[in-house]
Amino acid sequence: MRLFRRFIHKPGLPPGTLVAPEEKVARKPEISIFHYQESNYTEKIIDINDITESKSTPAVSWINVNGLGDIEILKRLGERFDIHELTLEDVLNLDQRPKFEEHDAYNFLVLKMLYFNKAKTDIESEQVSMVLTGNAALSFQERPGDVFDIIRERIRKGKGRVRKFGPDYLVYALMDAIVDNYFVVLETLGNSIENIETEVVENPTTQTSATIHSLRRKILLLRRSIWPLREVINGFMRSESAFINKESQLFLRDLYDHTIQVIETLETFREMLTGMLDVYLSASGNRMNEIMKVLTIISTLFIPLGFMAGLYGMNFKYMPELEWKWGYPVLLGVMAASVGAFLLYFRKRKWI
Amino acid sequence: MRLFRRFIHKPGLPPGTLVAPEEKVARKPEISIFHYQESNYTEKIIDINDITESKSTPAVSWINVNGLGDIEILKRLGERFDIHELTLEDVLNLDQRPKFEEHDAYNFLVLKMLYFNKAKTDIESEQVSMVLTGNAALSFQERPGDVFDIIRERIRKGKGRVRKFGPDYLVYALMDAIVDNYFVVLETLGNSIENIETEVVENPTTQTSATIHSLRRKILLLRRSIWPLREVINGFMRSESAFINKESQLFLRDLYDHTIQVIETLETFREMLTGMLDVYLSASGNRMNEIMKVLTIISTLFIPLGFMAGLYGMNFKYMPELEWKWGYPVLLGVMAASVGAFLLYFRKRKWI
Amino acid sequence: MRLFRRFIHKPGLPPGTLVAPEEKVARKPEISIFHYQESNYTEKIIDINDITESKSTPAVSWINVNGLGDIEILKRLGERFDIHELTLEDVLNLDQRPKFEEHDAYNFLVLKMLYFNKAKTDIESEQVSMVLTGNAALSFQERPGDVFDIIRERIRKGKGRVRKFGPDYLVYALMDAIVDNYFVVLETLGNSIENIETEVVENPTTQTSATIHSLRRKILLLRRSIWPLREVINGFMRSESAFINKESQLFLRDLYDHTIQVIETLETFREMLTGMLDVYLSASGNRMNEIMKVLTIISTLFIPLGFMAGLYGMNFKYMPELEWKWGYPVLLGVMAASVGAFLLYFRKRKWI
Amino acid sequence: MRLFRRFIHKPGLPPGTLVAPEEKVARKPEISIFHYQESNYTEKIIDINDITESKSTPAVSWINVNGLGDIEILKRLGERFDIHELTLEDVLNLDQRPKFEEHDAYNFLVLKMLYFNKAKTDIESEQVSMVLTGNAALSFQERPGDVFDIIRERIRKGKGRVRKFGPDYLVYALMDAIVDNYFVVLETLGNSIENIETEVVENPTTQTSATIHSLRRKILLLRRSIWPLREVINGFMRSESAFINKESQLFLRDLYDHTIQVIETLETFREMLTGMLDVYLSASGNRMNEIMKVLTIISTLFIPLGFMAGLYGMNFKYMPELEWKWGYPVLLGVMAASVGAFLLYFRKRKWI
Amino acid sequence: MRLFRRFIHKPGLPPGTLVAPEEKVARKPEISIFHYQESNYTEKIIDINDITESKSTPAVSWINVNGLGDIEILKRLGERFDIHELTLEDVLNLDQRPKFEEHDAYNFLVLKMLYFNKAKTDIESEQVSMVLTGNAALSFQERPGDVFDIIRERIRKGKGRVRKFGPDYLVYALMDAIVDNYFVVLETLGNSIENIETEVVENPTTQTSATIHSLRRKILLLRRSIWPLREVINGFMRSESAFINKESQLFLRDLYDHTIQVIETLETFREMLTGMLDVYLSASGNRMNEIMKVLTIISTLFIPLGFMAGLYGMNFKYMPELEWKWGYPVLLGVMAASVGAFLLYFRKRKWI
Repeated sequence: MRLFRRFIHKPGLPPGTLVAPEEKVARKPEISIFHYQESNYTEKIIDINDITESKSTPAVSWINVNGLGDIEILKRLGERFDIHELTLEDVLNLDQRPKFEEHDAYNFLVLKMLYFNKAKTDIESEQVSMVLTGNAALSFQERPGDVFDIIRERIRKGKGRVRKFGPDYLVYALMDAIVDNYFVVLETLGNSIENIETEVVENPTTQTSATIHSLRRKILLLRRSIWPLREVINGFMRSESAFINKESQLFLRDLYDHTIQVIETLETFREMLTGMLDVYLSASGNRMNEIMKVLTIISTLFIPLGFMAGLYGMNFKYMPELEWKWGYPVLLGVMAASVGAFLLYFRKRKWI
Repeated sequence: MRLFRRFIHKPGLPPGTLVAPEEKVARKPEISIFHYQESNYTEKIIDINDITESKSTPAVSWINVNGLGDIEILKRLGERFDIHELTLEDVLNLDQRPKFEEHDAYNFLVLKMLYFNKAKTDIESEQVSMVLTGNAALSFQERPGDVFDIIRERIRKGKGRVRKFGPDYLVYALMDAIVDNYFVVLETLGNSIENIETEVVENPTTQTSATIHSLRRKILLLRRSIWPLREVINGFMRSESAFINKESQLFLRDLYDHTIQVIETLETFREMLTGMLDVYLSASGNRMNEIMKVLTIISTLFIPLGFMAGLYGMNFKYMPELEWKWGYPVLLGVMAASVGAFLLYFRKRKWI
Repeated sequence: MRLFRRFIHKPGLPPGTLVAPEEKVARKPEISIFHYQESNYTEKIIDINDITESKSTPAVSWINVNGLGDIEILKRLGERFDIHELTLEDVLNLDQRPKFEEHDAYNFLVLKMLYFNKAKTDIESEQVSMVLTGNAALSFQERPGDVFDIIRERIRKGKGRVRKFGPDYLVYALMDAIVDNYFVVLETLGNSIENIETEVVENPTTQTSATIHSLRRKILLLRRSIWPLREVINGFMRSESAFINKESQLFLRDLYDHTIQVIETLETFREMLTGMLDVYLSASGNRMNEIMKVLTIISTLFIPLGFMAGLYGMNFKYMPELEWKWGYPVLLGVMAASVGAFLLYFRKRKWI
Repeated sequence: MRLFRRFIHKPGLPPGTLVAPEEKVARKPEISIFHYQESNYTEKIIDINDITESKSTPAVSWINVNGLGDIEILKRLGERFDIHELTLEDVLNLDQRPKFEEHDAYNFLVLKMLYFNKAKTDIESEQVSMVLTGNAALSFQERPGDVFDIIRERIRKGKGRVRKFGPDYLVYALMDAIVDNYFVVLETLGNSIENIETEVVENPTTQTSATIHSLRRKILLLRRSIWPLREVINGFMRSESAFINKESQLFLRDLYDHTIQVIETLETFREMLTGMLDVYLSASGNRMNEIMKVLTIISTLFIPLGFMAGLYGMNFKYMPELEWKWGYPVLLGVMAASVGAFLLYFRKRKWI
Repeated sequence: MRLFRRFIHKPGLPPGTLVAPEEKVARKPEISIFHYQESNYTEKIIDINDITESKSTPAVSWINVNGLGDIEILKRLGERFDIHELTLEDVLNLDQRPKFEEHDAYNFLVLKMLYFNKAKTDIESEQVSMVLTGNAALSFQERPGDVFDIIRERIRKGKGRVRKFGPDYLVYALMDAIVDNYFVVLETLGNSIENIETEVVENPTTQTSATIHSLRRKILLLRRSIWPLREVINGFMRSESAFINKESQLFLRDLYDHTIQVIETLETFREMLTGMLDVYLSASGNRMNEIMKVLTIISTLFIPLGFMAGLYGMNFKYMPELEWKWGYPVLLGVMAASVGAFLLYFRKRKWI
């Protein structure tokens, strides 16, 4: 993840001016629509002109837009569902904080979908916006993804409660699918953290601290996507707007609990990593101590010996020891004694 | 304890779908039931089919389920006591945060039971869920444990107040038994911390920082189990549901005080360990200083001497000193003086 | 940015005494005035005497004062718009915290405009004060800048909503222009942080920690300008004064979201930099370890060899080895074996 | 102070079961009773059987129990003053957090008395519980102490307000005596901190960091005794129970201020100690730098010289320099030049 | 500043007992009194007996007491203005936290005046207490100071608003004079911090960390004097007592803003210093790296050379190389090659 995705809006443009995110323009957006009620459902891929058509449906409608490269679609949807242009600007602005807004005609939600991209071994995030009106839910994704497929499947097969409840339950189900996916990301992160933990304690390398830093960075950026969610779901749950039925609130409370758990896990991960860097530093200090001990032991043993040998290598004319018969063996004995004394000293200090 | 126990629920399943935790399926759950009032009590191990039977008892019922491998039991209990399926899902989902929920037909509590597993010298946690209705209390444990035995004993012997009060007091008593056990775990941890504290100050080894880290990790994970308890007991205590009598609230306040004390002790432990790593680092730096001092002293004393000896080991034809009668003893004197000067210098610097 | 710009007010002067900021006196302030309504607008550079003239305009007036060197202008504006002298003092006092104040006759806002000065590679801040009355907005800048030009352009061309709304929307638009500019500053900072991050991990130099510190300092000073803004915009948004229309509040909420995002980004930057210094320290420790290893390996290999050579350089009369035919090659062999043994030892320790 | 004094209550016992603290059983408790009103007072050491006797006194009664080894006393007092058994259990449970509880028949307070034990140079804490009823105050101490003597003296001599006010003022006076004593403990701690501060800056030893840690530990444990006091006094002050007169509240506010001051001083001490460990670490790093500089200077000066001397100690047959008349003095000159060059280099680097 | 000035009150004395601070007894207090209204004023140095005299003045009275060595003065003032004895004790107790208290007959304020004592290069604090009644303000200082002179001057010359407003404005003006002086102290601190910042980055010495610590200590102690002020001014501003007019509240809000700014600046200073110690540590590590590099380079170059020289200094009878004509030059070549190889290695590692 980059620290900074892109600008909120082009500085200088009046607020509410719609500008398609540059990197999205190329790909053509795909619009799918579901109409369902308890007994049946229809599903189609629609054209931009079909958006305004089906106004009078009594059933629940779910319009999903994949790709944000065409602002015309947003304008049409905005007109049909009476969406404020600041909201439409927020849909296009992909560096939004997760948020919940109540408007008279609809409720608006922004969330972050998170993936673990195995190829880049990085976490990627995608913005999902949702608009909830009395009998429709609109969802906007940056690119086609498979997280919502399980909801589509449930609608098609009439599994679970989704067909029995209104669009508020649908929005809940979509959010639940997103939050469930956070746990997959957390598990991957948790495994990385447990690996680095073993590495720190058992076999730290010079790469270890960079890896710890990179995990911390990921968690820092994840927090920005996940922390506000707590507030978002709480706001949505406690909202007194007419679009949310009482039965759905029980499910939202469950979702809220899950979000708290994601946040707490993230915080635990973070404290863990902070602690690990300290352990790494102390391990690094210990290795240094080991290296220095070896150097000191070798130097302490041999430098004095070297001096003694040098002493009797001198060429003074009058050095009586050199003439002694036992001079050489006695010196060897002195050397051995000196080594022994130092070894005892090191043992006493617990260096060897 | 692992960072991550298992998934909240299988991503993709509709909320409220009951799935028995995989590792639990093998063992057959055991269901025991107590019916008691002030004057008498009955106790039996019952079968799954007996659950629905004893509907009209006027006394207090306590149904305890040991093991979560059979979702059929939960379904039956759910039907009989009118328990929402999200609650049943929470009972099965073993990575829950402690929580308290008020429902119309019952109150729901999730707690963590903590054990110190001596074999693995690790702390283990087990999820306990409780459902409190007007005249019954249900408790669900992951595996048979002995923490609740003291409550069973009190019911059998009519000791204490348990037989005189309703199911709310029973739930309090079960929670109290769990929290009492936290103190045992804390005491074990406290002993480990005091041991490592002595080690850090008196005899730090390269293992010490890993041990400090491992204790910090344990406390980090314990916090996740214990912190939310504060809120849980507070919620339970202040709940205005009809299931909790005023007399029980006094006892819950007492329990609340105990929980605060557990949390504060945990925080003190945590700050202690943080401080200890700093002390360890400074001790490690001091050891390094000691090692370097030895190296420096030896090198400083002998390297110059070695040079002097080397100087008079040269083979120049014209080196007048070599011919002098007192050359050798004078040089020895110079060497002794040099050693003496350095020793004075080291003493002045308080190195020796 | 300096830690301390200048005094709040000269200690000793009675509160409300107007003193032009010293460094501003030289430059002559420039006053421009816009009168606009939906259908038309007039724009002129006015003289100090023209200020009081145009009292009865029904349209919206925007008076912008560039430069604070002439307290006479402030006094006249103060009289005409009934501005309290403490407010006027606040306009002149350039070390203000951003703030929002409700008065009976007007609302008062202080903000900080931020620029990235490329020449000095530093962030500069300028104080902007605004006064909002029923049909006029006054803005005071330290020096002419181009951030407000886009608003002027919109008024001239009737682009966006500005001509359709009252002076409250104008004040919002000016604030929005200022906050939009924060993102430019943040992006520059974000780039610097990503650069230093790469440097820390891949190629840390002795300058790196000073650079990290200097970035932290910038962020610390930015926070002082930006944190209070949250409160300011919130206060402005929730104000119940008659000067703010309900329609403008929706836009202020959007602005509030942007401010939160600026603050969160700043906090993320800050935590990032804190983490980076730790990584730098551990990298620095690793480099030290590398250096020590080289020293230790060389010393350990050659000091014993040097001793052996020295031993057979001694001049004792009776040293049988010296006479041996194979003495020299055997010694070379011993030396090679010693080197080999140490190399094996180093390999085992993973030093080479 | 130990991290952990003893168990809250024996795990397994029903709540409200009175168990005398083990280490207290041996010593016989001492009960003293004061009856006083503005005009006169009586004071006696009473027997366990006298407790229930003097029921109808119109004056204020103060019953002080020194030592908790006899649960019979508590039971009797409990019966006479209608004290809940959970409260009695709290009196016996010596690891309580300071707390304030309102009951219908009485108010209950738990505080910690702190002493500086000069013999062990450690801070000791003792639990003091107080029960306040309409016309009596009960106080329970672990062992006889002299902190309350000044209150006894005031009652005997009718000094101050104590004889003119009710039992609520007496309880205030007892708390005030306890909090006053905290300042004595703080002053001792403050002196230790200032001593260690001088030591860190001027003459750090290897013991210093252990001393800093031990002071931090003391403060950590003190906080657990003192922090909750704020809440306790606030609760007591704002209590709407009939046992506290309005006039006493003014005094409690004063006491509250003192408590805040104790807490703030403790926090300042704590931050001070944290900062000091950092200074210690940097001082330790500086000492290391000094040591390394000495080693490097000596090695750098003499190792090259040693090499040069070794060079001309070689026994090659054809080494022309050896035959030169001025070879030796020239070499000495080169050596002196090399030393001079290194000294200049070190000076430039500001090492010497 | 000392960590601990002196005792709150002598432990053991009943609350409300007046004891003159010991070190103050020697100096005779000086009492001055101002009576003023819009049109005129009188000013005199009065005697202790004059205090009670001038009871019926309709104008505003300001009684300033310089020096607290005479408790008789306090007693007289206490009687005349109906001041509670706990308040009088607070005036004498010079280690008070800043506070605001509302009493029926008066409002009471405690503040800290701060000076930068250039002689000791330390910050000194002095306690100022103020009592505000309906038509009088009393101020108590520890020693004569010149901060209030500017207010006296304004009263004498009728400058500013002070003569037009009541005693509440006077109290505000005195507080404003005190807070204005904080900025002088902050500026001195700010300069010290910027100096040490340059020192850390450009030329760190062993004194640097002690200086950083000493600055942190100052800020820590300043915080204790300044933080509570926020609450004090807020309390005073929001007070609903009859002694504060609505007009004065606007000025108090201004003062409140200044206090917030002082606090924020202090916090910025503090974070700055914390960051600086980290930079210092990393700079110290870098210096160590530099030192070690020099040692390693010299050792690595010369120790192997020394060995080679030693090798050919051996006295073996059979060493063919010694006899070779080109032995010496070849060896010199080998030595040069070895040096070259190591230099290349160091360059590759970017050590030179």
